[in-house]
Amino acid sequence: MAKSLLSRRVFTTSATAAALAALVPANQTAASTQARTAGTTMGAVRRITLYAERLEDGQLGYGLEPGNATIPGPLIELVEGDTLEIELVNNLDVTASLHAHGVNYDVASDGTRLNDSVVEPGSRRTYIWRTHAQGRRVGGAGIEPGSAGYWHYHDHVVGTDHGTIGIRRGLYGPLVVRRKTDVRPDKTFTVVFNDMMINNRPAHAAPEFVAKVGERVEWIVITHGEFYHTFHIHGHRWADNRTGLLESLEDQSRIIDTKITGPAESFGFQVIAGERVGPGAWMYHCHVQSHSDMGMAGIFTVTDAAGNVPGQPGGGHSGGDHSGH
Amino acid sequence: MAKSLLSRRVFTTSATAAALAALVPANQTAASTQARTAGTTMGAVRRITLYAERLEDGQLGYGLEPGNATIPGPLIELVEGDTLEIELVNNLDVTASLHAHGVNYDVASDGTRLNDSVVEPGSRRTYIWRTHAQGRRVGGAGIEPGSAGYWHYHDHVVGTDHGTIGIRRGLYGPLVVRRKTDVRPDKTFTVVFNDMMINNRPAHAAPEFVAKVGERVEWIVITHGEFYHTFHIHGHRWADNRTGLLESLEDQSRIIDTKITGPAESFGFQVIAGERVGPGAWMYHCHVQSHSDMGMAGIFTVTDAAGNVPGQPGGGHSGGDHSGH
Amino acid sequence: MAKSLLSRRVFTTSATAAALAALVPANQTAASTQARTAGTTMGAVRRITLYAERLEDGQLGYGLEPGNATIPGPLIELVEGDTLEIELVNNLDVTASLHAHGVNYDVASDGTRLNDSVVEPGSRRTYIWRTHAQGRRVGGAGIEPGSAGYWHYHDHVVGTDHGTIGIRRGLYGPLVVRRKTDVRPDKTFTVVFNDMMINNRPAHAAPEFVAKVGERVEWIVITHGEFYHTFHIHGHRWADNRTGLLESLEDQSRIIDTKITGPAESFGFQVIAGERVGPGAWMYHCHVQSHSDMGMAGIFTVTDAAGNVPGQPGGGHSGGDHSGH
Ligand SMILES: [Cu+2]
Ligand SMILES: [Cu+2]
Ligand SMILES: [Cu+2]
Repeated sequence: MAKSLLSRRVFTTSATAAALAALVPANQTAASTQARTAGTTMGAVRRITLYAERLEDGQLGYGLEPGNATIPGPLIELVEGDTLEIELVNNLDVTASLHAHGVNYDVASDGTRLNDSVVEPGSRRTYIWRTHAQGRRVGGAGIEPGSAGYWHYHDHVVGTDHGTIGIRRGLYGPLVVRRKTDVRPDKTFTVVFNDMMINNRPAHAAPEFVAKVGERVEWIVITHGEFYHTFHIHGHRWADNRTGLLESLEDQSRIIDTKITGPAESFGFQVIAGERVGPGAWMYHCHVQSHSDMGMAGIFTVTDAAGNVPGQPGGGHSGGDHSGH
Repeated sequence: MAKSLLSRRVFTTSATAAALAALVPANQTAASTQARTAGTTMGAVRRITLYAERLEDGQLGYGLEPGNATIPGPLIELVEGDTLEIELVNNLDVTASLHAHGVNYDVASDGTRLNDSVVEPGSRRTYIWRTHAQGRRVGGAGIEPGSAGYWHYHDHVVGTDHGTIGIRRGLYGPLVVRRKTDVRPDKTFTVVFNDMMINNRPAHAAPEFVAKVGERVEWIVITHGEFYHTFHIHGHRWADNRTGLLESLEDQSRIIDTKITGPAESFGFQVIAGERVGPGAWMYHCHVQSHSDMGMAGIFTVTDAAGNVPGQPGGGHSGGDHSGH
Repeated sequence: MAKSLLSRRVFTTSATAAALAALVPANQTAASTQARTAGTTMGAVRRITLYAERLEDGQLGYGLEPGNATIPGPLIELVEGDTLEIELVNNLDVTASLHAHGVNYDVASDGTRLNDSVVEPGSRRTYIWRTHAQGRRVGGAGIEPGSAGYWHYHDHVVGTDHGTIGIRRGLYGPLVVRRKTDVRPDKTFTVVFNDMMINNRPAHAAPEFVAKVGERVEWIVITHGEFYHTFHIHGHRWADNRTGLLESLEDQSRIIDTKITGPAESFGFQVIAGERVGPGAWMYHCHVQSHSDMGMAGIFTVTDAAGNVPGQPGGGHSGGDHSGH
C-alpha cells in the first residue's frame, strides 16, 4: 500500500491526482517537492475515506483502506488553501469520531458529543477541514495566521467524552499543513509519545527510522495521554519555531535538541541527516530518565551513501523493523 | 459592580479617571481601545485598594471592595509607563501578601516574608508596581525589555513561605501590561488552572465564556499549584509569541492551539471569535486526558450576530453561569 | 582554583592561552568580553582533561583536576568555530561517559553504550566536540543553524543505558556555545533542577548567587531527572529566545520570569542585576508549590555599589555559602 500511495503522491501534478489528498501511512513519506506544489495553486478540494478499525492485537487505528489501519494513522498533508473532506467509516463496535487540531471546521466537524458530530458503529460521516494562508484582515484588524503547522487528529469520544480510551489504544495520526513556499522533506517520520509508549509500540520496541546522510528528514512529534515528555535526538538539533528551520540569518529562534511536550501538543522540524556528525546509529528518546529506562527510546539510523552504518554490527541497520523508509 | 467599573474604564480619558486603574473583575472586560490609550501618554500613577477576604464557601479571594472578592481576583490592566499603588487590606485571619510577576518593584513590594513585606490580619500595606517601555540602554548595553506581558499576581505567604495554601484557595489574579500600541480586545477571559480546578470552580463547572462572532477576544491563561497542564481550545488558534498575534508577515512564530504550562507561568493571546469556523459551542480544556475527564473543561460560546448558537438546545448559550460577558 | 582559572581566562588573548578552554567551575565565572573574543577568530582547537570522581559524600562529579570534582561540573564555554577535545579520565569504579547536547560529534564521541563510546573504570577516552557558525548551506538548501546555545553535558551510562544514576548523583555540567558577537556576561550562574534538588544540594540549601547592581549576570538553567519544574526569579525577567535578550526593537519574543522545563532541557539568559528594582535578596525558585516548599529555592543577592544589601540582617549577604562570585 505504501508504494501505490507514494506514486499517487508523486504524480499530483495531474489534474485528477490533484483531487486526492497526499496521504501516506505515517513514517513512510518520500516527498517530491516540485510535484506537490504544482497542483495546488488555487487550493484543491480533496476527498478521502478513513476507516476506524480494531487491529489484531486489540488496539485501534485509522486506515485508508479497510483492514489496513495503522498506528499512528496515515500522514495527512495539506497545503494552505486546500480543503479536505474525510469520510470516516466506523468499523468499531463503539462510537468513534475525528477531531483535528489547527485546521478550520464548523461545529458539525468538531468530532465531539457536545456538537453531535460523532459516528455510531457501522456508520459513516464526512468531516470537512479547511485551510487558508496568512494575510492581512480586511479593515486593518491585523494579520490572520495561516493554517500551516505540524498538527494532528484523534478520536474524541471512545471511552470518555475526551476520547481517552480511543487515543490510548491508537486512534490518532499526524496532520501537516504547509505553506506553498515551505521546503518539502525527503522523508517524514512521526513520533507519538502516548503515555509510556512510542507509537503504541511495546517498551523497547520503538520504530527505527532510516535515512541516508544528506537527506532532508522531517520529524513530527505528537504527545498524548497523561504525561509530559522531553523529546531528544542525538547528533541533530533544530530551531524552536514554526518550521524548525531558521528562516533568515536574523532569526533569533532558540536552537534546541530537547523539547518538553505535553498531551495534544505537536511540533515538527527538519534536519539534514548526519549533517556535521556523519552516519551512525543516533538515539532518539524521551529524556525523562525513567521513561527512557522503561523503553521510550528508538534509533535514527543514518547510513552513508552506500547504505552502510560504520561501526554497527552487520555494517548497517538491523534487518528488523524499519518504519522510516 | 461590573457595570460601574466598566463605565469608569470607558471614560478614562478624563484627567480624574486617568488616575484610576482600569480594573474590572476578571473575565468581565469590554475594552474601549481609544479610551484606554488616551489618558496614559506620560504614564499614569494609579491607586487602588485590594481586599483579601474569605468567601462564603471558605475559599479566599481578592476584591476591589469589601465583601466582593472574586476568584480569580480583578483583572489589573496597565500600559507601559504606568505605576500602580495597591493598598492591600488583609481581612483574613492569617497573614497574607501580594506578589506580582513581570512588573518592577523594590524588595519592600516583594510580598514575601524574606523581604518583610507581608500584611498581618487586620492590617494594610501599599505595594508599588512600576512599568516601563522597552528601549536601548544607556551606554550601548543592548535593549531593555519592556514590561508588557500577560502576568499575574498572587499571595506568597498563606500556609507556607511560598503561599501554597493562599494560592490553592484562590488568592490570585490576572495582570496585563500593554504596550501603548497593542491592540485592545473587546473582551478578556481569564482561565486559571489551579491544581485540578479552573478558576477554583468545582469539577465540571468551569466558566462559560460568551462572545459574538467577530469580537476580538483575549484569553489569559495562568497556572498554579502542583501540576502541568496543556491548554487547548477548539476551532481557534494563536501565535506562540508575546501577544499571540502575528506582528508581521515575516513573523515565524509557531501557530498553536495547545500549549503546555506549569505553575506560575502565564500567557495570553487574542482570537477573533468564530473566525473561519462560525458560531458554536467550542470547548476549551486541559488536554491531559485524566484532567479533562475529571472536569477541567469549559465552553467558549460563540453566538451569531443575533446572539444565537446554531445547533445548541435553546438556540443559544445556557441560562446558567456566564462568566464571559 | 577558581582564581587561577579566572586569570587564565582573562588572558586568552595570548596565543598559548587560546589553546586552553575557557573553563571555570560552574557558578564562578567573571567573563572579560574583549579578552574572550580576540583569540578565536579562526576557531581554536582546545584540549582539556575531565575527571569523573566520587565526592566525599558519595555523590559523583566531573572536575578539571583530580580530587577537585564539583556539582555541577565545570562550565565549558566555547565560541562558534571552536573544537574541544576532552579527555575523560574515569576515576570511578563503574563505567562512565560524556554525552553533550548541542555540539557536533561523531558516533565515537556519543558517550553511549550503543555507540561503544564509554569509559571503563581506570581508563580514559578523548571526546571531540566541534562547533560552527550559522550560514547558508551550499546549493540553496536553506540556513544551517549555528552551534550557539545554552547546552549541557552529562553521563549516559552509570546505572542505566541512559545514565540515570550518574546524572542523579551529579555527573552533569553546563556548556555554553557563543556566537562571536554575543554579549559576554560579568558572571555566569548555573542552576540545575535535578529531581527535587538544586545542584544536588540538600533541601533548603540551594546556592546563594551574589552580584552588584548593574552587573550583567548570565543564568544557565538545566533540568535533569524525573520531574518538570518552573524556574522563577523575583524582580527580574528575560526574553524567551536564543540569548534571553531582545535582539532588536522589533523582536516579538515573549518576556517572561517563569519557564517550564523538563529533563535535559536547558536555557539561559542575561539580566542586569537589580535593574529597575534595586539591590536586595531576590528569591529564585521552582514555582511548583510543593517543590519550593520542600526547599527548591535559593537567593540571588544583589548588593549596592558598596557591597551592602539594604534591609537584610548584617547589611549584606550571608557569610555562609556563596557560589555566585
Ligand atoms: Cu517521557
Ligand atoms: Cu491539566
Ligand atoms: Cu520543581
